[in-house]
Amino acid sequence: MTKVTAQLSVSLDGFYAGPRHEGGGDWLHSAEAAAFFRVTRWAISAMAWRERQGIAGGERDVNSDVIQENFEAAGAYVMGRRMADGGEAPWGEEPPFRAPVFVVTHRPRQTLERKGGTSFTYVTDGVESAVARAKAAAGGKDVAVAGGGSLVRQVLAAGLLDELELHIVPVVLGEGLRLLDADLGLGQKEGIELTPTRVLHTPGVTHVRYTVEGRAPLVLDDRGRGN
Amino acid sequence: MTKVTAQLSVSLDGFYAGPRHEGGGDWLHSAEAAAFFRVTRWAISAMAWRERQGIAGGERDVNSDVIQENFEAAGAYVMGRRMADGGEAPWGEEPPFRAPVFVVTHRPRQTLERKGGTSFTYVTDGVESAVARAKAAAGGKDVAVAGGGSLVRQVLAAGLLDELELHIVPVVLGEGLRLLDADLGLGQKEGIELTPTRVLHTPGVTHVRYTVEGRAPLVLDDRGRGN
Repeated sequence: MTKVTAQLSVSLDGFYAGPRHEGGGDWLHSAEAAAFFRVTRWAISAMAWRERQGIAGGERDVNSDVIQENFEAAGAYVMGRRMADGGEAPWGEEPPFRAPVFVVTHRPRQTLERKGGTSFTYVTDGVESAVARAKAAAGGKDVAVAGGGSLVRQVLAAGLLDELELHIVPVVLGEGLRLLDADLGLGQKEGIELTPTRVLHTPGVTHVRYTVEGRAPLVLDDRGRGN
Repeated sequence: MTKVTAQLSVSLDGFYAGPRHEGGGDWLHSAEAAAFFRVTRWAISAMAWRERQGIAGGERDVNSDVIQENFEAAGAYVMGRRMADGGEAPWGEEPPFRAPVFVVTHRPRQTLERKGGTSFTYVTDGVESAVARAKAAAGGKDVAVAGGGSLVRQVLAAGLLDELELHIVPVVLGEGLRLLDADLGLGQKEGIELTPTRVLHTPGVTHVRYTVEGRAPLVLDDRGRGN
């Protein structure tokens, strides 16, 4: 059965990038990029990631296996507009996805066909529609929400996410773009419950995979009060 | 050698309690408490925690072992004033610490001696002084920062924390009191680097222990650019 999954690298304090780089100037040398490159450093070292980008070298290790597994599980992707725009040039003629990508945007655009099985289809009628179209295109494999963080959050808030894998990087950043931010629309004394299903531990990153169980009230547990 | 350690239960989005309960009314039924009891539920079920509170029952499992180990490693504690005030009544005549506790406060008060080896000494000249006094009293064991979260953050920001163990609970809360908040005083493109040294995985909580390496600049890693 097709699951909707998301995988994201975050700092120990929950950031996937530094404070948003606004306006002109060089993104690559911004504080946003510095933090982004810090939390994704483990992936850049991994052979499976490098191979997908057409770059030689890298480590064949647990981290590489995690990346390869996630690439192979995905039959289609959903992506935010900002990520798609930012990636268009660097990903080049043969992007690493090798599957249909559905970009959530307000701006209609003709589908972009790339080499190696990647296509970008621009969906203008919302997140739910993009997820539904990706499911239909996934051929029984999973739909991966590729990012950015705000799209992952929207999919989670809408109750559409089945599985979340966080790659927790051992650095505290203090500020930046936070994956699990206040706009999840949770009520007072309400949480989103998850169940961890796999934990893989390496010196540079802890991979924790969760099944998303859904919203639930925070019930008072006062067993600690005795008897 | 005496290490300064901290252990804290946090939600997947980094909260150790719900939004701060202000003013009158019943703390136990506040949103702050509801989230606090959710993230500490694993501990309340653990035999080692219950035994220290003088409550029967509980599970003898990995979670219980983690609690017992942390209690046994601590030769002295440092604690924030709000936590000490809030605990004074419920902890009663024989608090669970069984060691000297140094409370960081602005309000002088005579040392409070309790049964079972616990004492509360009120330190009015700052966090560094409280940590130094706890180290001197720890008899070669560790100094544990008992909480609350803002004291853990102060000790971390001051470069005094050697080891941090997070008990990461699989729930997203959306808002509340966050352990790793913006007031860590980090500069732009600066992080606090850590090294994970132990990961223990149970269905209700993931225990990740880190050595704190200290502040470091976020250097640009552009190996992903190819060549």
